[in-house]
Amino acid sequence: MTFINNKSLGILGDGQLAQMLVASAHKLGLKTSIYSESKKGPASNEAHHHQEGSFKDIKEIISWAKTCDRVTFESEFIDLSSCRLKNIFPQPKNMQILRDRLSQKESLLKFKIPTSPFKRADQCSSFEGPLVFKKRLFGYDGYGTRIVKSQKDFKSFLENEKNLGEWIVEDFISFKRELAFSISRDTSNRFCLLPLVESLQRDAKCFSVHGPENNMLIKPLLPKIKKLLTSLDYIGIMAFELFETKDGKIYVNEVAPRVHNSAHYSIEALSLSQFDVHILSIFNQELPRKIEPLNPFAMVNLIGTKKAKPFLTLPQKGSLHWYRKKQNRPGRKMGHITVLDKTAESALKSALKEEKRQNL
Amino acid sequence: MTFINNKSLGILGDGQLAQMLVASAHKLGLKTSIYSESKKGPASNEAHHHQEGSFKDIKEIISWAKTCDRVTFESEFIDLSSCRLKNIFPQPKNMQILRDRLSQKESLLKFKIPTSPFKRADQCSSFEGPLVFKKRLFGYDGYGTRIVKSQKDFKSFLENEKNLGEWIVEDFISFKRELAFSISRDTSNRFCLLPLVESLQRDAKCFSVHGPENNMLIKPLLPKIKKLLTSLDYIGIMAFELFETKDGKIYVNEVAPRVHNSAHYSIEALSLSQFDVHILSIFNQELPRKIEPLNPFAMVNLIGTKKAKPFLTLPQKGSLHWYRKKQNRPGRKMGHITVLDKTAESALKSALKEEKRQNL
Repeated sequence: MTFINNKSLGILGDGQLAQMLVASAHKLGLKTSIYSESKKGPASNEAHHHQEGSFKDIKEIISWAKTCDRVTFESEFIDLSSCRLKNIFPQPKNMQILRDRLSQKESLLKFKIPTSPFKRADQCSSFEGPLVFKKRLFGYDGYGTRIVKSQKDFKSFLENEKNLGEWIVEDFISFKRELAFSISRDTSNRFCLLPLVESLQRDAKCFSVHGPENNMLIKPLLPKIKKLLTSLDYIGIMAFELFETKDGKIYVNEVAPRVHNSAHYSIEALSLSQFDVHILSIFNQELPRKIEPLNPFAMVNLIGTKKAKPFLTLPQKGSLHWYRKKQNRPGRKMGHITVLDKTAESALKSALKEEKRQNL
Repeated sequence: MTFINNKSLGILGDGQLAQMLVASAHKLGLKTSIYSESKKGPASNEAHHHQEGSFKDIKEIISWAKTCDRVTFESEFIDLSSCRLKNIFPQPKNMQILRDRLSQKESLLKFKIPTSPFKRADQCSSFEGPLVFKKRLFGYDGYGTRIVKSQKDFKSFLENEKNLGEWIVEDFISFKRELAFSISRDTSNRFCLLPLVESLQRDAKCFSVHGPENNMLIKPLLPKIKKLLTSLDYIGIMAFELFETKDGKIYVNEVAPRVHNSAHYSIEALSLSQFDVHILSIFNQELPRKIEPLNPFAMVNLIGTKKAKPFLTLPQKGSLHWYRKKQNRPGRKMGHITVLDKTAESALKSALKEEKRQNL
């Protein structure tokens, strides 16, 4: 296939994931077009074109998507399941399956990919140990997640929640480490695997990532994951978040059908970033089967803590990414810093130190 | 000083250097504005704003420059010497001195920085060995350079060239290696040094760069270079191209008061690229005194060989940058590939192999 220079990439969404997709696309020689509801986000101002429109206006989205060679998503929550265009990746039918935690987990089970035991919340009547209620749709960064550790909290949740059908409930997994990796698939059924990383959470959202890490159970998991992706005819990158337990088991916690915070390190640490890999996959370019980092790495998120403007200091070590969002807000991902070093531990130490120097 | 997030950077020019400055600025959270004569280049379409105007319309440039926090150049040949604005870096008075090969070499001599013996071409009457005639202004990539190796060619050049005052003439240096490095200075007189590299030329223009390299004579040269920059009150990055001779001497061949092809490798190989360093310097951010690469590296230019559209193949190793220029042309720099590896030699070998796979 001809290389993608001068082709155009459309992106639905205007946040930092879209912004980093735009940066990668420009480096690769692509034209870019953003479709979003306003021009307030960072990506729309950096792309070649911007189309303003509602994410619910399917007709408008289709007419815009026809002007692009390929279209992709920043978020799985834009519902294009009624759209039959052939140039949108991942395909909307897959986004529909994967954004719903219920059908996502059912898909994992179908391919024997270990995940925590779960059921629909409206089928859960007794409390037999710590549970996690998760909204089936629109959950992210801890929003839409409720950990229930006592009979009393369990009762209270069931009584107060009016739409139990909107939730699933999982067994609470007591984990030793949270791990993540991304893998892409192209239209020729070729896969490209990114390194395994460990992630640390703060306030229920990803705070830092470091790697490369090892876990012997990932390798036997990969054939099952490849079967899942092939069965769905899934095209593009997919992020897997996992729990590693003290007794040495792993469980897939969540799947994200898109570029993901856990792989931002890849911009500096890999020869092809997750953004490159996603774009090249949906344009069916032949990628290496596995991308290995030359150096250990760590990434730390810069998360807003107040409404006032942040006061930043240039990191002494590492690379700063600042998303130029219009407003600082407590809990909002405003940027990140990536550090490469001789070990993942020293990289993480430096990254955390740099984060502390910032007045966010 | 407050960090530069949300500040704006204006760039005069619309080529690949402007494009890579824009990419760096966006990553750092800056707004960008391009001033250029058309919107045909790659940078104007990727910046937040574009102002169309003539490079000779100083009034228009000044009114545009006032809308930016800082303004910089992609090319030293835009003459703003009559402009007194305080937010343009490097300062136009310096661009005026450094773009003219005569005053550039006189500045080097003044600070005892070794450079090949030279004189004005109109003061050169006898041929005593191989010479290089160089146009004082507008020379680049071998354009405006004439190597004269015989008495006959010497006579012919003097007879046929009507404006000898527009040329300088240098002794021809028979070199073993061509080396290069960049150094930046900020408004607080702090310097930031990038690694030494070796460059290989093809058809009188930079073809590849690899490093890091060593030469014992660079260290004693640096205090002189710092004195030159301080004396000029030069702000921003400056690229030095050097000859290393067989008898172990070094000569500064040329100086470029801007980001430079010889440091494109820095995007992947350094924690701060030359584009980051230039921008951060003109915004007076505190940079490390020296940036060392974690891995050896090589960069190879992708140079057009025909008028027809190039046919690209995704590199199996390394990172591709494709500038998305509207026209492919023989001799035109269309993109580059950077490879990091265990040694500079193996990185260069891979980069050259990837270049060969391209149908440019």
